Amino acid sequence: MTEKNFILKGNVCCSETSTAFSITENAYLVCEGGLCAGIFRELPEKYRSFPIKDCGDNLIIPGLTDLHIHAPQYSYRGTGMDLELLEWLNTITFPQEAAYANLNYAQKAYSIFTEALKKSPTARACIFGTMHVPATELLMDLLEETGLKTMVGKVNMDRNGVPNLQEKDAKTSAQDTATWLEDTLHKYQNVRPILTPRFTPSCSDELMEMLSVIQKKHHLPMQSHLSENLGEIAWVKELCPDTDFYGEAYDKFGLFGGECPTIMAHCVHSPDAEIHLMKERGVYIAHCAQSNTNLSSGIAPVRRYLNEGLHIGLGTDIAGGASLSMFRAIVDSIQVSKLRWRLVDDTQKPLTLEETFYLATEGGGSFFGKTGNFKEGYEFDALILDDTSLPHPQELTIRDRLERMIYLGDDHIITGKYVSGKKIF
Amino acid sequence: MTEKNFILKGNVCCSETSTAFSITENAYLVCEGGLCAGIFRELPEKYRSFPIKDCGDNLIIPGLTDLHIHAPQYSYRGTGMDLELLEWLNTITFPQEAAYANLNYAQKAYSIFTEALKKSPTARACIFGTMHVPATELLMDLLEETGLKTMVGKVNMDRNGVPNLQEKDAKTSAQDTATWLEDTLHKYQNVRPILTPRFTPSCSDELMEMLSVIQKKHHLPMQSHLSENLGEIAWVKELCPDTDFYGEAYDKFGLFGGECPTIMAHCVHSPDAEIHLMKERGVYIAHCAQSNTNLSSGIAPVRRYLNEGLHIGLGTDIAGGASLSMFRAIVDSIQVSKLRWRLVDDTQKPLTLEETFYLATEGGGSFFGKTGNFKEGYEFDALILDDTSLPHPQELTIRDRLERMIYLGDDHIITGKYVSGKKIF
Repeated sequence: MTEKNFILKGNVCCSETSTAFSITENAYLVCEGGLCAGIFRELPEKYRSFPIKDCGDNLIIPGLTDLHIHAPQYSYRGTGMDLELLEWLNTITFPQEAAYANLNYAQKAYSIFTEALKKSPTARACIFGTMHVPATELLMDLLEETGLKTMVGKVNMDRNGVPNLQEKDAKTSAQDTATWLEDTLHKYQNVRPILTPRFTPSCSDELMEMLSVIQKKHHLPMQSHLSENLGEIAWVKELCPDTDFYGEAYDKFGLFGGECPTIMAHCVHSPDAEIHLMKERGVYIAHCAQSNTNLSSGIAPVRRYLNEGLHIGLGTDIAGGASLSMFRAIVDSIQVSKLRWRLVDDTQKPLTLEETFYLATEGGGSFFGKTGNFKEGYEFDALILDDTSLPHPQELTIRDRLERMIYLGDDHIITGKYVSGKKIF
Repeated sequence: MTEKNFILKGNVCCSETSTAFSITENAYLVCEGGLCAGIFRELPEKYRSFPIKDCGDNLIIPGLTDLHIHAPQYSYRGTGMDLELLEWLNTITFPQEAAYANLNYAQKAYSIFTEALKKSPTARACIFGTMHVPATELLMDLLEETGLKTMVGKVNMDRNGVPNLQEKDAKTSAQDTATWLEDTLHKYQNVRPILTPRFTPSCSDELMEMLSVIQKKHHLPMQSHLSENLGEIAWVKELCPDTDFYGEAYDKFGLFGGECPTIMAHCVHSPDAEIHLMKERGVYIAHCAQSNTNLSSGIAPVRRYLNEGLHIGLGTDIAGGASLSMFRAIVDSIQVSKLRWRLVDDTQKPLTLEETFYLATEGGGSFFGKTGNFKEGYEFDALILDDTSLPHPQELTIRDRLERMIYLGDDHIITGKYVSGKKIF
């Protein structure tokens, strides 16, 4: 794998800890066999034969991980934004997702999505498809081609859908899932299937039981939604009167972390017991600040989750969130944390740039293993950032330049992208 | 003025009312002598000699008005964002603004700013300079060249600054202001001076008295800051123990609207009496949603201001806000209004796209007279928007396309810009 032995030279920025940057100017960042060998001020003798790409004054940061995104919703991001969650699902999302029954439409839509994801700061992502097996497999084929590392879920939903977007029954949903897994479980280098019950209102108890069996058989990771919106939470309580909190509606089927790595998106309104159970089961929280704002859901207590040592990463949640950019997700997370501090609880300090950068890199990246940092032995995911399109009259520190690119930068500032040592562009 | 007689043909979108769009597909938008003559489905006989620019399937919207922006702060937007207002002013803003004593630096920084403003969706803006007369005049010269319509203020600040950024005394500040007005009051076609006491903590009573005299002499418009941050409000109360609320600290010098049109930025924490006085005096509120978020100030009660019939427009408030784009200001305003509804007061409904679009166009634009709409007799300010860089697999309505461009678009979607009938690019 000689092509995975190389060196990037530039200003290397990553997390020193979850609250501090490590910034090494004019450093050598070594990739050896797709893994990071370290950041060096002087190049060690043993790497002197590796080709060096000189990135000049550019910044080099780890690739970002998007823990929660709906691929079929990319087509209508930034529209219908004046609605709240349940109304938005029924009037926009479900009818739009129904279109993915048509494979020609899916090809067109998913090509646009995967091309955009490839150009974005995202190196790794956990992605919802739709309930349709062919369209979801097509999405996985297209993602495989990008070189990004992704987990993709065929969505399960056998109740409370709309006429064109609901599976016939639990058995059909489970059978389709089995077919999909058979097709995809060992097919790809870069894409893995992830179990994806849409959310409790969409999945009957019978279906949840079947999915739990499927999960344990293949030791599948899982992703779903949790405690996003007050109306949704009240509905789950009605649907599952035997539960004390929403998370129990997954947990009673063994679908709440533990042995199988699990992501729950949102957790805006999680009660204490739910938080404790998430911690106990190692559940990852995908914090989706912009989506929780757009859909008027609220602001998740991320400072508390950090203090209590839960696993957290960030998600764009397209199309609840309108922006595919994880840079924007970092900024959104800082911004809503400030409003939460001011308006809800001034004992919970706002998040800093250092903290949210960590969440977007190693925080969420750890769901994929050793990723999201430039420590020795980590997967070599890197972005080269060029800020010459953002002119400034004064001197700026490297940290200022990084902050500025995160606040202001679009995809055009990314001039190089690597995932597991493979050059994406 | 033949060059100001022309027609744009395309999908014309503007406000029908403050809560509804007017959308006319494939329409003729006529500019006659720099003013809008109307939107026509069929071109009237009398305009048949005017040259037609066919914008195809593009959208045409009114130019946007930024009611609050600090030109010298553009250079460091998107940095130092982890601080609250007063700390941010002292550690970042004041030291950075001090650099504008150097005219070479100002030339470099203001050239970058004016070039960016020209390319942005902003047609008109109310702009803070610094306390320095030469740099502020240079800024005005550069803005004149852009063709945008702006009001620009030399800042007054004779107390509570930092060593390099504070005027010697009230008299010096007033004299500098007189010099600046003499130089600029009748110099430009596109730029007008606007009186700009920074905010109460920066201006002694003696200075306020002198500025009031200057204002009345020239019937000058004015811009300042009001009730942005709780720490600031407490400080004003200390500085002005004879006032019942912050607005009185301006009003007692006759510097709070009335005869002279006045903009107060922020009004996040205005008490009832202040709101009533703003209404009585016709004071314009510049709502700066992103800045109020970044500086942890809070969320202004815009729904209440609308219900009570106050004048409101939007501001980017660079560099409290990081983005120069008024598209982003529209989105930010919607987003924070949703969080306010959820977290502070659920009797105050979130703002809609239609409402915030109105605020960004005619709402703020009316500070400049008849602008921000395509009604007959309005100044012809228009943007041509091309969304082909935002591919989509499905049909979209014109409204959806507009919403999408506002949520997702950057300056590159603007392919044409006109102000008062003059082509900017």
